[in-house]
Amino acid sequence: MGESAVNCTIAVDTMGGDKGPTEFIRGLFYAIEELKLECNFVLVGNKRLIERLLTVGKLDAYQDRIKVIHSTQVIGMNEKPIQAIKSKKDSSMVQAIAQLKNNEADAVVSCGNTGALMACGTLRLRQIAGVDRPALGIIVPSKQGPFVLTDVGANPESTAEHLVHNAVLGSNYAKAALNLTHPRVALLTIGTEEGKGTALTNQTHTQLQKINGVINYVGPIEGFQLFDGEVDVVVCDGFVGNIVLKSSEALFGFISTTLREALVRNVKRKIGAVLSKSAFKDMKTRLGPDQHAGAPLLGLKGNILKAHGSSNFVAIANALRIAQEVVTHDMIDSIGSEINQCNALNTHCEEENASN
Amino acid sequence: MGESAVNCTIAVDTMGGDKGPTEFIRGLFYAIEELKLECNFVLVGNKRLIERLLTVGKLDAYQDRIKVIHSTQVIGMNEKPIQAIKSKKDSSMVQAIAQLKNNEADAVVSCGNTGALMACGTLRLRQIAGVDRPALGIIVPSKQGPFVLTDVGANPESTAEHLVHNAVLGSNYAKAALNLTHPRVALLTIGTEEGKGTALTNQTHTQLQKINGVINYVGPIEGFQLFDGEVDVVVCDGFVGNIVLKSSEALFGFISTTLREALVRNVKRKIGAVLSKSAFKDMKTRLGPDQHAGAPLLGLKGNILKAHGSSNFVAIANALRIAQEVVTHDMIDSIGSEINQCNALNTHCEEENASN
Repeated sequence: MGESAVNCTIAVDTMGGDKGPTEFIRGLFYAIEELKLECNFVLVGNKRLIERLLTVGKLDAYQDRIKVIHSTQVIGMNEKPIQAIKSKKDSSMVQAIAQLKNNEADAVVSCGNTGALMACGTLRLRQIAGVDRPALGIIVPSKQGPFVLTDVGANPESTAEHLVHNAVLGSNYAKAALNLTHPRVALLTIGTEEGKGTALTNQTHTQLQKINGVINYVGPIEGFQLFDGEVDVVVCDGFVGNIVLKSSEALFGFISTTLREALVRNVKRKIGAVLSKSAFKDMKTRLGPDQHAGAPLLGLKGNILKAHGSSNFVAIANALRIAQEVVTHDMIDSIGSEINQCNALNTHCEEENASN
Repeated sequence: MGESAVNCTIAVDTMGGDKGPTEFIRGLFYAIEELKLECNFVLVGNKRLIERLLTVGKLDAYQDRIKVIHSTQVIGMNEKPIQAIKSKKDSSMVQAIAQLKNNEADAVVSCGNTGALMACGTLRLRQIAGVDRPALGIIVPSKQGPFVLTDVGANPESTAEHLVHNAVLGSNYAKAALNLTHPRVALLTIGTEEGKGTALTNQTHTQLQKINGVINYVGPIEGFQLFDGEVDVVVCDGFVGNIVLKSSEALFGFISTTLREALVRNVKRKIGAVLSKSAFKDMKTRLGPDQHAGAPLLGLKGNILKAHGSSNFVAIANALRIAQEVVTHDMIDSIGSEINQCNALNTHCEEENASN
C-alpha cells in the first residue's frame, strides 16, 4: 500500500448495510474527491465485486491508497449478534475488525448489524482500562453548533458510574469530531432544580461535579433545552438516548411529510413551494443525518464507527471523515488518561466519605 | 347557577399560568362560542378582575353558566409545591381543587405550577383505589390519528406495576378524549425483539400481556415508530415521557426556526414563502400543541387537567373541552373498574407462579 498524507488507515465493512457495496464505493469516491480525506482504506468484502466497482467508480487513480481484502460471508441485519459473529468468522464485519485488532487499520466503519458490531468489537478489542461498558455517541445538529448525544443505545441499564464514563467518552468524542478544546458537558434530566430528576440522575450529577476539571461539566439540562446548542455533550443512559434519537428522527420525518402534503394542496401553494424549494433542501442538509453519520463505539481499545444501515454515499463519506478525525486526534489515548483521573477522583471521594 | 345542556361543571384556576386571567377569559369565550362547550364554569380568582374581564370579553350573555369564586392568593410558577399549597390556602389553585373535592365541580383546569397542582390534587383527592401513583397523560399528533403518551412527568421512577397502571390510565384517557372503544396500547422500549430493552420494560411487557383483554395491549414499539399512528396509547415512565415530550416540542420549534431562516435568505424564496404561507399555518395547526392542551392527572379520584403555563386562549379552550370529555365519559369510574381487574389478574398470576 502506498503512503497517504495522513498516517491513518480505515478498514471498511463493505458488505454491511442495506444498500450494499455499490453505495460504499460511491461514498469512498465522495470522501476522497469532495471531503478530501487523505488516509488509506482497506475494503473488506467480495474482492472481485469490489475491484469491479472501484474501476466503474473511477477510483483506479487512488489504487495506491486502497487495499482490498477478500471475505466470503456477510452478516445480515436481523441475525442474532453472538451467533452471527461466531458462525461467520469470514464475514466482512469480523474481518474488518480483525484488521483493526492486528494493527493493519486504525479504525473500522460499518453500516452493518449494530448488535453484531458491538459484540464483535467488545470481544476482540476489549474496553479501555477503567471503562466498564462502551457507549454509542452520535452528533446531533442544534440552533448553534452540533453536539454529541451519548449513550444512544449500547448500554440501556446504566449506573451513575456508567453515566460518568459516558460524560468522559462524549467529551473526548466532541474534542475529536467537533474540534473543541473544552466541550461543555451536560446531564439530561427532568426538572433542573436541586432534588428533581431520579436517584440515578442526582447521584450522577454529584459525581460529575467531582470530576469537573477533568471534563467541563456545566450541569443538568431538560428536554426542552436539547436543541438550544448551549452545550456540546449531552449525557444520558442508552435507553433514554436511543428513544430520544429515534423519536427525533421520526418527528423530523413526520414534520417534513406533513409540510409536503400541505404544500401540494392547491396551485398557489405549489408555486410557492417550487420557488422556495432550495430552502427546504438547505434545511434537510442542515438537520438531516447525513452530515454526522458515524457513531463511534466509545470506550473500546480501537475506533469502531457504526453508520446507519440505510446510509447513502454522503452519510458513508462523512462516517469515513469522522473515523479519520478520531484517529488523528488520538481519541483512545485521551479517553484512557481521563477515565483514570475520574475513577481516581470518585474513588478518593468515596474513601473520604467512608472514613468520615 | 343555571342549567347547562350537559351535566358538568368545570372549575378554572383563573390566576395560574404565565399569561394571567385575561387569556383565560378569552379561552372561555372561544370554548363556548367556537368549540360549543355546553357545561357550567366556576372561575376562581380575583372576583372584581374576573367580572370586569367577563364584561369586556362579552361573556355576560352566558352568566347563568358562569359562577365566580373569590380567592386572594396566587401560587407562582417557581414556588416549592408543598410549601406553596400549605401557605397559600386561599390561592386560586387550592380553592379550585376545593370546589372539586366538595362536589361543586366535576373537573379542574389549571395552567399553574405543575408540582403544586399534583401535590394539592393528590393530597385533597387521593388516588383511585388500587392506583399507586398518578400519571400525566398528553395527546400527541401522529401521521394518522392523535395518540396518548403517558406518563410525561408525574412519576419518574416507575416499577412495572406503575407502568401497567399507566397503560390502564392511558387507555381510559384515550377512550374519553379520543372517543375510541378499544384503544391500541403499546409499551415504549428500545429493540422490540424478545429480550431487548431493560429489565423494567421486559417485566412490564409480561404483565401487560396478562391483562390483555382488560386493555387492548398490542406490544412494544420503538422510538422510530412513535409518530406512525399505529397505536393509540404509548406507555412509558415519567422520566422518559417527559424528555420525549419536551425534546419533541423543542425539535418542532428548532425545525420551524431553521426553515423560517432558510426561507428569507433570498427574494425568490421569500416570494415562495408568501405564496405557500397558509401551508405552514396548516402544519402548525395540525402539529402544534394548542389542539390537545390539557394533560389530566390520571389516577386521582377527580379530574384535574394541567394546561401548559404559556397556554394561549386556543390551548385553554381545548383544555376545557377535554375536561368536559373526561367528565361526560365517566373516566374515573371506568379506571377504577379496570384497575381492579388488572390488579386481580396480576396478583392471580403471581400466586399461581408461587404455588408452582
